[in-house]
Amino acid sequence: VLTSELLNDISGANVFFKCENFQKMGAFKMRGAANAILCLSEDEKSRGVVTHSSGNFAQAVSLASKKLGVKAYIVMPENAPQVKKDGVRTYGGEIVECPSTIQHREASAKQIQEEKGATFLHPSNQDEVIFGQGTAAMELLEEQPDLDYIFTPVGGGGLLAGTALAAHYFSKQCKVIAGEPIEADDAYRSLKSGKIEMNATSNTVADGLRTHLGDRNFPIIQQYVEKIIRVNDDEIIHAMKLIWERMKIIIEPSCAVPFAALLRDKQDYKNKKIGIILSGGNVDLKNLPFK
Amino acid sequence: VLTSELLNDISGANVFFKCENFQKMGAFKMRGAANAILCLSEDEKSRGVVTHSSGNFAQAVSLASKKLGVKAYIVMPENAPQVKKDGVRTYGGEIVECPSTIQHREASAKQIQEEKGATFLHPSNQDEVIFGQGTAAMELLEEQPDLDYIFTPVGGGGLLAGTALAAHYFSKQCKVIAGEPIEADDAYRSLKSGKIEMNATSNTVADGLRTHLGDRNFPIIQQYVEKIIRVNDDEIIHAMKLIWERMKIIIEPSCAVPFAALLRDKQDYKNKKIGIILSGGNVDLKNLPFK
Repeated sequence: VLTSELLNDISGANVFFKCENFQKMGAFKMRGAANAILCLSEDEKSRGVVTHSSGNFAQAVSLASKKLGVKAYIVMPENAPQVKKDGVRTYGGEIVECPSTIQHREASAKQIQEEKGATFLHPSNQDEVIFGQGTAAMELLEEQPDLDYIFTPVGGGGLLAGTALAAHYFSKQCKVIAGEPIEADDAYRSLKSGKIEMNATSNTVADGLRTHLGDRNFPIIQQYVEKIIRVNDDEIIHAMKLIWERMKIIIEPSCAVPFAALLRDKQDYKNKKIGIILSGGNVDLKNLPFK
Repeated sequence: VLTSELLNDISGANVFFKCENFQKMGAFKMRGAANAILCLSEDEKSRGVVTHSSGNFAQAVSLASKKLGVKAYIVMPENAPQVKKDGVRTYGGEIVECPSTIQHREASAKQIQEEKGATFLHPSNQDEVIFGQGTAAMELLEEQPDLDYIFTPVGGGGLLAGTALAAHYFSKQCKVIAGEPIEADDAYRSLKSGKIEMNATSNTVADGLRTHLGDRNFPIIQQYVEKIIRVNDDEIIHAMKLIWERMKIIIEPSCAVPFAALLRDKQDYKNKKIGIILSGGNVDLKNLPFK
């Protein structure tokens, strides 16, 4: 948990950053993956796990499986970037390639479930994963019990739902707010309409937040999340640059979204004590969004 | 103080990184500037301080002066980058411009000393500054008393001399080693010859380490520093990239030099407990050395 006088001055609030970019494999996804695997029976563990994420969750499942002595099958599209394949291999996951449509990915995962008896792990829409992601907020509240708010990003909804549960059960007063890219605002619109909406576009620099809510996390978000604040890409890049330059830590674009949301509506949070979950720091140093 | 399992695996040692990139204004220089100003009499404080550094020390003197209510005059060449001038102004220093030769800078500083009665502060060759820089190693040894070695970079020699004194007085066993760019290896050659040598070239990515040793810090370095390991720019950039990618923190090229030195000679430090002073994180995000 880091703080910055300069960012407090800029935001007008008292901000505590929970640094999941320092987490194993560089993102909070490690928590959900580890918890889901720890919840398996010995028999299930012996048959392995399978997922078809190509991002941080693939690496999280690979590393958590390795540490727990479980076989991990990672379904990835043939044209996935080499760096992502290398990441999975480094952490010990077995890559299963397939054509790059979601139908093929789901079919390949299904096949491995049937052939190997492996358990399917979803990156955001599974109770054990949601509870695991919630441990970041739980730890933050142990250290700062009197937070007024916790801000997280929302993509698939696992981190947001887990954070909302943690705030509900481990704090009396702490409310949970999400930041979301305006170009992938399915969660914002889902809260308005009361049903899971799809993204019309996903043209945002916050590449980790282009996914949709699911039937496990959406009801939790409906019940326990105060509001969702939408931000545009300029705001996301501005917030990311402030955190890089002022705090000297590396975060990925998706990770800057909740701080961008706070800056956008900062008049509403003046002098409040705010926790921000910095979700991850896996960024391609050769392709940075700064101008 | 941060640690990384991955960097321990790569180096074969047990490494504790003292993160001066998280220091106020982003570098260890804040320590020396603050200590030097705190050591002034009330009368001296009322007449202000002056320096002619254009880098991190200028910002450190500006910020430390502001916090201590002392006037700071910063002599800078007319053609200094706008970002450096802005940095000094943000921290409250008064910029005095002069032509861009060292003679003009020294003359301007001298004039301010005479006209205003301001005290001159040297970035590395002054006892109070050296003692201030040593507090980083002192704090690291308080947290990890059984370190076998501390590695620092060497440029002007203030951090290295301060670290060597701290290790000598606050530890029984800890030895001090410096990393130096091979293209600016004045300190390495000075230790060999027994007198202060000048740099023949200064063509290195480690722009903070192009300066020379002085008559206050050189005798301390001669007496208390174990050895100096030279590294080339490829090694520096490789070490910098490892720290960015694996630890998710931002460090400047000069700051990567001691870790590059450890990697170069890692067979000599297998399983040793090593402290590394990460000197600073002020880097231009638009001009990174990664390929």
